[in-house]
Amino acid sequence: MERRQFLKGAALAGPAVAASALAAPALAQARVELNIVSTWGRDFPGLGTSAQRLSARITELSNGEIQTNYFAAGEKVGAFDSFDTVANGDAQAYIAADYYWVGKHPGFAYFTSVPFGMTGPEWNAWIKFQNGQALWDELSGEFGLKALPCGATGTQMGGWFNKEIETPEDLRGLKMRIPGLGGTVMSKLGVSTVSLPGGQIYENLVSGAIEATEWVGPYNDYFMKFYEAAKFYYTAGMHEPGGGLAFGMNEGFWNGLSDHHKAIITAACYEENANQPEEAIANNGIYLKKLIEEHGVQLRSFSDEVWDAFGEASEEVFAETREHSPLAAKINDDFQASLRANGSYTKIAEVEFSNQRNRVLGL
Amino acid sequence: MERRQFLKGAALAGPAVAASALAAPALAQARVELNIVSTWGRDFPGLGTSAQRLSARITELSNGEIQTNYFAAGEKVGAFDSFDTVANGDAQAYIAADYYWVGKHPGFAYFTSVPFGMTGPEWNAWIKFQNGQALWDELSGEFGLKALPCGATGTQMGGWFNKEIETPEDLRGLKMRIPGLGGTVMSKLGVSTVSLPGGQIYENLVSGAIEATEWVGPYNDYFMKFYEAAKFYYTAGMHEPGGGLAFGMNEGFWNGLSDHHKAIITAACYEENANQPEEAIANNGIYLKKLIEEHGVQLRSFSDEVWDAFGEASEEVFAETREHSPLAAKINDDFQASLRANGSYTKIAEVEFSNQRNRVLGL
Repeated sequence: MERRQFLKGAALAGPAVAASALAAPALAQARVELNIVSTWGRDFPGLGTSAQRLSARITELSNGEIQTNYFAAGEKVGAFDSFDTVANGDAQAYIAADYYWVGKHPGFAYFTSVPFGMTGPEWNAWIKFQNGQALWDELSGEFGLKALPCGATGTQMGGWFNKEIETPEDLRGLKMRIPGLGGTVMSKLGVSTVSLPGGQIYENLVSGAIEATEWVGPYNDYFMKFYEAAKFYYTAGMHEPGGGLAFGMNEGFWNGLSDHHKAIITAACYEENANQPEEAIANNGIYLKKLIEEHGVQLRSFSDEVWDAFGEASEEVFAETREHSPLAAKINDDFQASLRANGSYTKIAEVEFSNQRNRVLGL
Repeated sequence: MERRQFLKGAALAGPAVAASALAAPALAQARVELNIVSTWGRDFPGLGTSAQRLSARITELSNGEIQTNYFAAGEKVGAFDSFDTVANGDAQAYIAADYYWVGKHPGFAYFTSVPFGMTGPEWNAWIKFQNGQALWDELSGEFGLKALPCGATGTQMGGWFNKEIETPEDLRGLKMRIPGLGGTVMSKLGVSTVSLPGGQIYENLVSGAIEATEWVGPYNDYFMKFYEAAKFYYTAGMHEPGGGLAFGMNEGFWNGLSDHHKAIITAACYEENANQPEEAIANNGIYLKKLIEEHGVQLRSFSDEVWDAFGEASEEVFAETREHSPLAAKINDDFQASLRANGSYTKIAEVEFSNQRNRVLGL
């Protein structure tokens, strides 16, 4: 698996320079065309609108020098075909959760979220100021890609269930949509798991093909109408504490950009990387209330016993992931070390403060 | 207090267009000069290096169209003179914690951090996606200024003390450096408080003029050498859960910018607004270890009894702040409403996950 599978495609794909650039003033940079294929539906609140905002922002910040064309899921290719499309050079970038590509390499899971992993700020610290980006570059480079963080969901809810989950035994035999290593953890506990793009979850839940699903949080989940088939909504899950999203570019395209255009794309990605989870926080409380009051959703939390079972299964999953390849082991070990360093600190800062504030104010 | 105190200065100060812009190509925008006065010392790790990075980034993202000149504290004016300097149009922007200006208007405290307030992500949600920025604009506009978020410390540590604080009585009579409304809370509990810029804290602590101080967190605090005079380092404090920083511009300068240059400055500020606290998370664990192992610092946490006393005093402080003016009341009430909405959600997401993860992994 650790070879440059799409090297040929990557080498052929240089920056897509529009013909009109030839007529541009001498001091202006060549006009660049950037086709973006996304895994989110057109105008989907939260994930989709964030991706569209990023696309428009790149053009705006470059003063029109980088012309982006945004294709929502299905408009150019299907959601799960976006990786190959960009690796092959048929588009210049995808917007996705990189854990969709664990079939290509399990290391991709660490660049979205892994069970018991880092929260958004901890993960960003790893990506930007520890070894995260270098490891991501090494992994993406195997496939002719270069990825940047471009959004995040924040800690995801535990998911939607058509029955209560009180003990680990209640999970056995359940059919659930949950991708990434979180899905593998659920499999260890007897869950029959499947990975589906967002646009296909509702129909499978309503038909009974699946009995449970995780998606994101109240703001994103509200519009999915899962409550029609599953009334129990579980708070914080173990599976996606950060939910980081990727702006995955064709490596040849990226390498052909000027330093200025690289800076513009990076700044736009980093800006949206912060904006998206902050927009979710601003909306999640409102939509959670609507779910409960308008649709009779019942909020539940996993018990310590269930969390402990998740923890044991996660250890097995990480041990197996390490065995895949030296690169998978290197990514896992560096991630786990930064998790312990960063998490030990946020425990005595953000988390300790939040616990005391919530106690004193009665939140 | 609610009048446009510096209206004359603001009206006179348009964009500082450099003479060389006259020779630029027809399609390029006018070259803009942007002088930034900062409240942080030159090259100070964390706060200072973040502000300098932002200054350079604005020039980089604008492809040189916005030429920034960065002046650290004392290089052009003293740290606490930066507000008036920018309001008067003698510089175009300051980088500061806006709670330094509570003497001008107590509403400024809410645009850094207030006791029992919002964590960084919650506060950013309020600023960007709820009513925060509009209220900040209304307040800053009273002084001929326009501010954007441009950095954050993350939840600040409780501070450095030369004795242990086990009960609220231990605070009585203590001389402590703590600015903003957190300082007012401490005053209610019998602490004699003072606000000092960073560059003056060490000398006052070593001389005994003050017996305690808060600053930021391990990464920033390490270089201040407070451990030479105060060995007890308290984890999460009540006073600055977010620690947001401001890029405060002269309003006339801002209004004279092109939409493209406004977008560049906003994106650079938002990018750094995320980068700074993430850089702190990446470093805080490392520097906390150095403080403990190299300098014998002893870590302590405030007891529930002390937190409860902080809580009661905070209620008094907010009631008094509301009485200052209709605008102060409006800012406080909107902040408190968003705090409860956003905090109630993060409680069942980020915080619940972190507590379970830390328990299961033994962090």
